[in-house]
Amino acid sequence: MWCVTPAERSGLHAYEVVLKHIEAGILAGTHRPGDQLPPERDLAVQLAVSRSAVREAMRVLQTQGLITSSTGPGRGTRIAPARGDALARIFQLHLALSDAGTDDLTETRVALERSSAALAARRTNARSLRKLRALVAGMEEVEPVDEFNDLDTAFHVQIARTGQSELIADLTVAIRQAVREAIRTASASLPDWPQHRAELLHEHQQILSAIEAGDSAAAANLVEQHIRRAYSTLGIAGPAEARDQD
Amino acid sequence: MWCVTPAERSGLHAYEVVLKHIEAGILAGTHRPGDQLPPERDLAVQLAVSRSAVREAMRVLQTQGLITSSTGPGRGTRIAPARGDALARIFQLHLALSDAGTDDLTETRVALERSSAALAARRTNARSLRKLRALVAGMEEVEPVDEFNDLDTAFHVQIARTGQSELIADLTVAIRQAVREAIRTASASLPDWPQHRAELLHEHQQILSAIEAGDSAAAANLVEQHIRRAYSTLGIAGPAEARDQD
Repeated sequence: MWCVTPAERSGLHAYEVVLKHIEAGILAGTHRPGDQLPPERDLAVQLAVSRSAVREAMRVLQTQGLITSSTGPGRGTRIAPARGDALARIFQLHLALSDAGTDDLTETRVALERSSAALAARRTNARSLRKLRALVAGMEEVEPVDEFNDLDTAFHVQIARTGQSELIADLTVAIRQAVREAIRTASASLPDWPQHRAELLHEHQQILSAIEAGDSAAAANLVEQHIRRAYSTLGIAGPAEARDQD
Repeated sequence: MWCVTPAERSGLHAYEVVLKHIEAGILAGTHRPGDQLPPERDLAVQLAVSRSAVREAMRVLQTQGLITSSTGPGRGTRIAPARGDALARIFQLHLALSDAGTDDLTETRVALERSSAALAARRTNARSLRKLRALVAGMEEVEPVDEFNDLDTAFHVQIARTGQSELIADLTVAIRQAVREAIRTASASLPDWPQHRAELLHEHQQILSAIEAGDSAAAANLVEQHIRRAYSTLGIAGPAEARDQD
């Protein structure tokens, strides 16, 4: 099967011909996770490119988490299941280079986490509630900025996972990772970290209660207020705009 | 500057050493858009890898939209400004391979587009209103599924751009592109496309009115109802869950 027409080939680097061929198969659904790709030499012959062009294309696909390679009998190169961490890494690099200001990041985080929290309140179960409670209990115990921040991140990620929307969870993780360093630095230089920590803890407890109660509207509103209040205290976002979804 | 420690190097392919070196610079903010990278041979010497390893890493970075290469005096390889289309492409490939069902996609779209619509209602201006009105006027004129769908996509993307959150806009574009084919196919096989088209048109008009009126709560709720109603008619999403943010 040819996924790239001769007209499309002109102007492309050889490795891009290979890349577009594989990508077209993924987008069309003919390449599914677990499917084995032809050996390097066969692909080179099939697409009339050099083996090094095939190898370069495989590097690209591998870095994007779209294929996995392993050696040994019956292994080879296969289409990978989608991996949130590969997407998160690329997302983070883009954020580092983008003009997306903290306001933009804040609005995106609020949009995604309102939804996560609302879904979590609807779809929670005993196991995920135990995890959320353990994280809040952990935050009650620890004082230092870095340890507290790690539990804070884990709490927000666990809410997203509880909501059972993998896509929202992956995006939440990516954005939370992208702002992690900024939050850490700002937290460390607060004049009154114990006060900020106490507010964060109280907010997390309230969010947990709303999720436990299955009150999705309250969970969404509390998460939004929490994110905006924290960013404003940390000075890493402009003044909060009117909260029209409350 | 060395961004990869010797311990981290072990177990990495040579191209990954180069990749991690450049990525660490991007994440640390030492590589900014427009910055020129050292020539291939200098990077190879600096990182003690082959020139082909450097070239493979550059292919990866280029495909991710993180660098641009051009030939000619004073050109060379530079760090690129973040490009939404490169991110959207990778996102789309991941969606194609992920288990994210249509429910997951729907929830993510609703989360992002509620936010886009609310921001658009707050931040609109004469120019973006003209564009939105022109798109709705266009939809009043066209009957065929494909042409109508193109305007429909453009309308949702324009709302996201009007909201001036580039990040939300890029994600909205990526998801809208990812579901485009499913929407097109489902629309084409509807028993009563003219009826569905009339409903879409009416919903778009209402959303436009809310944005014109600067009513962000109404804009957000109308967009959510529109997405859920349309997906349910098209049969590409499960029954809408309770809309707790209305």
